[in-house]
Amino acid sequence: MRKRTIRIISGLGGAAAILAVTPHTAFAQELPTTQDYLNNLWVFIAGVLVFFMQAGFALVEAGLTRAKNVVNIFAKNMADAIVGVLAFFASGYALAFGGGGGWFSGTDSFFLEGNNLAEIPSGGLSVATTFFFQAVFAATAVTIASGAMAERTKFSAYLIFSTIMCAFIYPIVVHWTWGGGLIAKINIGDAVYSDFAGSGIVHMTGGIAAFMGALFLGPRIGKYDENGNARAIPGHNIPFAILGVFILWVGWFGFNPGSELLADEFVSTVAVNTMLAAAAGGLATTITIWLKAGKPDLAMIGNGVLAGLVAITAPVGAVTALMAVVIGFIGGIIVVFSVFFFDKIKIDDPVGAVSVHGVCGAWGLLSIGLFSTYDDAFLGREDAGLFYGGGFEQLAVQGLMLLIILVWVGLTTAAVFAGLKYTVGLRVTAEEEIEGLDVLEHGLSGYAADLAHLS
Amino acid sequence: MRKRTIRIISGLGGAAAILAVTPHTAFAQELPTTQDYLNNLWVFIAGVLVFFMQAGFALVEAGLTRAKNVVNIFAKNMADAIVGVLAFFASGYALAFGGGGGWFSGTDSFFLEGNNLAEIPSGGLSVATTFFFQAVFAATAVTIASGAMAERTKFSAYLIFSTIMCAFIYPIVVHWTWGGGLIAKINIGDAVYSDFAGSGIVHMTGGIAAFMGALFLGPRIGKYDENGNARAIPGHNIPFAILGVFILWVGWFGFNPGSELLADEFVSTVAVNTMLAAAAGGLATTITIWLKAGKPDLAMIGNGVLAGLVAITAPVGAVTALMAVVIGFIGGIIVVFSVFFFDKIKIDDPVGAVSVHGVCGAWGLLSIGLFSTYDDAFLGREDAGLFYGGGFEQLAVQGLMLLIILVWVGLTTAAVFAGLKYTVGLRVTAEEEIEGLDVLEHGLSGYAADLAHLS
Amino acid sequence: MRKRTIRIISGLGGAAAILAVTPHTAFAQELPTTQDYLNNLWVFIAGVLVFFMQAGFALVEAGLTRAKNVVNIFAKNMADAIVGVLAFFASGYALAFGGGGGWFSGTDSFFLEGNNLAEIPSGGLSVATTFFFQAVFAATAVTIASGAMAERTKFSAYLIFSTIMCAFIYPIVVHWTWGGGLIAKINIGDAVYSDFAGSGIVHMTGGIAAFMGALFLGPRIGKYDENGNARAIPGHNIPFAILGVFILWVGWFGFNPGSELLADEFVSTVAVNTMLAAAAGGLATTITIWLKAGKPDLAMIGNGVLAGLVAITAPVGAVTALMAVVIGFIGGIIVVFSVFFFDKIKIDDPVGAVSVHGVCGAWGLLSIGLFSTYDDAFLGREDAGLFYGGGFEQLAVQGLMLLIILVWVGLTTAAVFAGLKYTVGLRVTAEEEIEGLDVLEHGLSGYAADLAHLS
Repeated sequence: MRKRTIRIISGLGGAAAILAVTPHTAFAQELPTTQDYLNNLWVFIAGVLVFFMQAGFALVEAGLTRAKNVVNIFAKNMADAIVGVLAFFASGYALAFGGGGGWFSGTDSFFLEGNNLAEIPSGGLSVATTFFFQAVFAATAVTIASGAMAERTKFSAYLIFSTIMCAFIYPIVVHWTWGGGLIAKINIGDAVYSDFAGSGIVHMTGGIAAFMGALFLGPRIGKYDENGNARAIPGHNIPFAILGVFILWVGWFGFNPGSELLADEFVSTVAVNTMLAAAAGGLATTITIWLKAGKPDLAMIGNGVLAGLVAITAPVGAVTALMAVVIGFIGGIIVVFSVFFFDKIKIDDPVGAVSVHGVCGAWGLLSIGLFSTYDDAFLGREDAGLFYGGGFEQLAVQGLMLLIILVWVGLTTAAVFAGLKYTVGLRVTAEEEIEGLDVLEHGLSGYAADLAHLS
Repeated sequence: MRKRTIRIISGLGGAAAILAVTPHTAFAQELPTTQDYLNNLWVFIAGVLVFFMQAGFALVEAGLTRAKNVVNIFAKNMADAIVGVLAFFASGYALAFGGGGGWFSGTDSFFLEGNNLAEIPSGGLSVATTFFFQAVFAATAVTIASGAMAERTKFSAYLIFSTIMCAFIYPIVVHWTWGGGLIAKINIGDAVYSDFAGSGIVHMTGGIAAFMGALFLGPRIGKYDENGNARAIPGHNIPFAILGVFILWVGWFGFNPGSELLADEFVSTVAVNTMLAAAAGGLATTITIWLKAGKPDLAMIGNGVLAGLVAITAPVGAVTALMAVVIGFIGGIIVVFSVFFFDKIKIDDPVGAVSVHGVCGAWGLLSIGLFSTYDDAFLGREDAGLFYGGGFEQLAVQGLMLLIILVWVGLTTAAVFAGLKYTVGLRVTAEEEIEGLDVLEHGLSGYAADLAHLS
Repeated sequence: MRKRTIRIISGLGGAAAILAVTPHTAFAQELPTTQDYLNNLWVFIAGVLVFFMQAGFALVEAGLTRAKNVVNIFAKNMADAIVGVLAFFASGYALAFGGGGGWFSGTDSFFLEGNNLAEIPSGGLSVATTFFFQAVFAATAVTIASGAMAERTKFSAYLIFSTIMCAFIYPIVVHWTWGGGLIAKINIGDAVYSDFAGSGIVHMTGGIAAFMGALFLGPRIGKYDENGNARAIPGHNIPFAILGVFILWVGWFGFNPGSELLADEFVSTVAVNTMLAAAAGGLATTITIWLKAGKPDLAMIGNGVLAGLVAITAPVGAVTALMAVVIGFIGGIIVVFSVFFFDKIKIDDPVGAVSVHGVCGAWGLLSIGLFSTYDDAFLGREDAGLFYGGGFEQLAVQGLMLLIILVWVGLTTAAVFAGLKYTVGLRVTAEEEIEGLDVLEHGLSGYAADLAHLS
């Protein structure tokens, strides 16, 4: 039943690797089995849940920012879905999973050309299923940066960034890992990289882009007072933000369990670990912020849940339920201090995307070296060794992976933002920022004036 | 595995036809296989996604209209779900799929009587599964008209319209097509009608009703100035509208792939085509409205995504991924010009339902004759011929189908709206319209006054 | 195929009982079949739908209350998800389904210790699947009380209540029923208790806790005038409330059909009954409130849909489609009179949770004795007898079950609320209640002041 026999490939990489090796081969025409249909259907449904996360990201970002920019924020998030899908179709899939690729990228399958989309290789996923699932991941990766760049980015510049991110920068990270490229080829002793559903590949990648975006943009007007102290700019709609967190939590039950890439007995265990880590992250943040600020700040608690989810995304297939609680809990502590830290060093990240996705993504990657004590009897998973090579060596390879992604995404996104800054311009004018981006960028208010008659 | 061997039946029609032929037959008691359970489970889950679209429709309509009518709008949409389900149970299912029917309608199975709901015919769907999936489609068809009739329709009149639509008008369209009736019996040369998931059967039907509703109601007070020029009446909550678009997009992953009616290898390809057409529609509208109006109007972009989705709904099973992009893209251009056109001819359609569902639904139907270049090697679908009879003949039969639906739905909905207008009344008083429908029709404000303390 | 051969176990109890009997047994290592994977995947997906209900509950409660408390309301609902999952992990699962248990509770499996989470017993569900599905049910049970306690409860006190409810009170009810304990051991003649998906076990349990919470808290300031007449305190966001109802309706398609615990031919029939009862409940409430109050109050109609859903949850597997309509319809009438009744006796329940979940939950339990005329030919369900022992005896055992749950949950929640009242305090100060809980409890406004610039 289980097809993942190549030790170096884990999580999403399994079927991806099969595809990467034989993209054009006409598979022998044996009829797919019901198990094959079930596998493909499940991964597709999981992809639908992941796609729904786009609404969650939009709501979180909109809720935590000001009403005068809400149209712009929804426009950016809708654009991420639109551009993400099309850019991944045109180029991203080819670079990540196309054939003929060496260590750097695939070199064919642009516009999915040359593939039979429907054909299901025995025990695997069709190109259509893989493309659907991977495209929604790409849209996720790019939309993470949107939050950190909120309330001051030119819409046209954002569209260009989003296109390059989905068409090129993110797919390369995927090729290097799940696609069998650079990072997948590294081993330190017995240990090879492990990132089940993308704490590093998706979330940290998005978080690094978010950091670079916030860095090149600079803080919003009014974020720092004359003494350089950060001021809170409260979000205009906390219900939106928390509804968004609920939707993201729901979507993560596609993100992680779907990355099993099969409908087997481990789907539910991955789901349980995901659920527990999210709850533990939320609990940890509740305690941390209550102790630190005197009150249980709900916006921060929402980020705590997301921190737990991001953190467990890499180790989710390799740890016990209790370890999932521990990893999520630590993520929920980290995110609070990280948010305060970036605020202090003047990286103005309105929604905490750098902390949630970048920092906790890194934490998730590293946690595999610390916590995944592969225990056959406990996990009941004969292939758990796939996800864990052991102790210090594992920690080292995870750290190396982290560095490679950091350098690649950091340099390329810096180049993109620098390029935009000195050509079309990255930031709106001060007048527009003060007035709000909605009317000037989109010709439309988020909430039309007749609300006035209610007061 | 594949059961659709009757060439004239496509998309939803496959299993439906089987049911229509043998509704009362006691199927031989062979035990259903796991594949049968998988098929039924998938179509049910797809139905749940389609049901979720009700929330999407409500949000889009509410977001694009004024706060003073928001309770009425949610009341109409909730009523569509309530009445839609019950009317389809009482009569709609019987007319559409009941036995004993000739070219016009089925004549039994009212209240599902006489059916064993749970029994799964070999390779097919149980009556329960079919009813569930078809009932949520019916609720979709009726709720489309709600948007075009917003902000001025009497609630009682709307309830009567909604009941007749779900109990009679829409089910007849279904019987004529997926049910094997009038339209299904037509062929021009080799070509027979093709409408995989209902660009014409569901969306154009809803769009025609929407047009008639807006026509009989007349424009809202204030929509046209003394010179007859249209004025924009901005929506009160763009976040609601775009959240609604995201939810509709998610729901469409049940609408189209679920219409495969099996959990086979084509579910994912249908999903990929759906995803790409939506994105292409959104992109086309972004470009079109940016060029035309100078700014990327987000409300219009949302309609562009929906236009792409509506357009691909008919051809989704018969075109390549690249053609799906083209069809969606053209839909996204059409919708912009269509919205301006109906505005100009004084059809006041607050959400653009006539353009999105009616005009782009028609475009979707016709696109099959233009773009579905059946290519076995590319689609990998041996039964692709089911969806396409070829060139001009196919275009002609699609056009004929379009005309028949137009005449049927146009005449019957006109009769209903005329009847309502001259009996219980179709439109609220001018005083009520100016004050808002919420308090006078429902005794309730959408947003209670304590929001005032926030300002 | 069907594994539920023990007559006394129905609905959720089936697989649960198997687990309860053999939690630690190393199942013989026969490979799971595709049907096993399908069953486990379906119950997990159903659990995801149920989890989504958390967002629905939050939106309904937030929408029907005032803007000044909206952060607190979302904080409580998020806490229910967080605490619910963790408390059920630490203790709830063990008490409900742990081994070594007698009539009162299980005695092991705390923190899921000693279980192989992934292993799928032949024809059954893995511990991971069962835990996932049961944990989201627990979170549902506890969150019901939140609505009745809205706008005046101390956040810290609520957290303690929520923890005890999920860790102890609710799991005992589950052990007594689906876990094979006290109530499951009772028979009156041929009849044993029947509660397919938890009208009584989940909803009435939540409703009783809701009643006790509202009772110990007392009414909100301003709810009753000097003559003791109830005043309406309008909700601040009806769109949120109705969006919440739509989401709950969607989630119920996991709640009820998922409780089949298998992917068999009855999943769709359960779904059809659920859909029809919801619609019938909504219709009945529309008619009742229109006649009673002169207008179709949308907030009440939303509760009518929920009343239909709660009512059908117990009998859903044992009644025909037409009976589902009747049961839902009666639920929709009951809820209106119940809401007015509790208002009159000064139980201030801002969202109607006691009526919807408590009263209609009881109605659902009793309806089995009245309406479930087991008819093999009609239901096509050979095991329908599982859900129905017949006539008066069935009614008696359902009533007895109702009483036992009432006494257990009533006494324990009363003890908790009394304990809280006289220690940490249950209610916020009058000043805080008037000002709103958001700023003082959470340091955050739901809607920041820049909305003001819009008016």
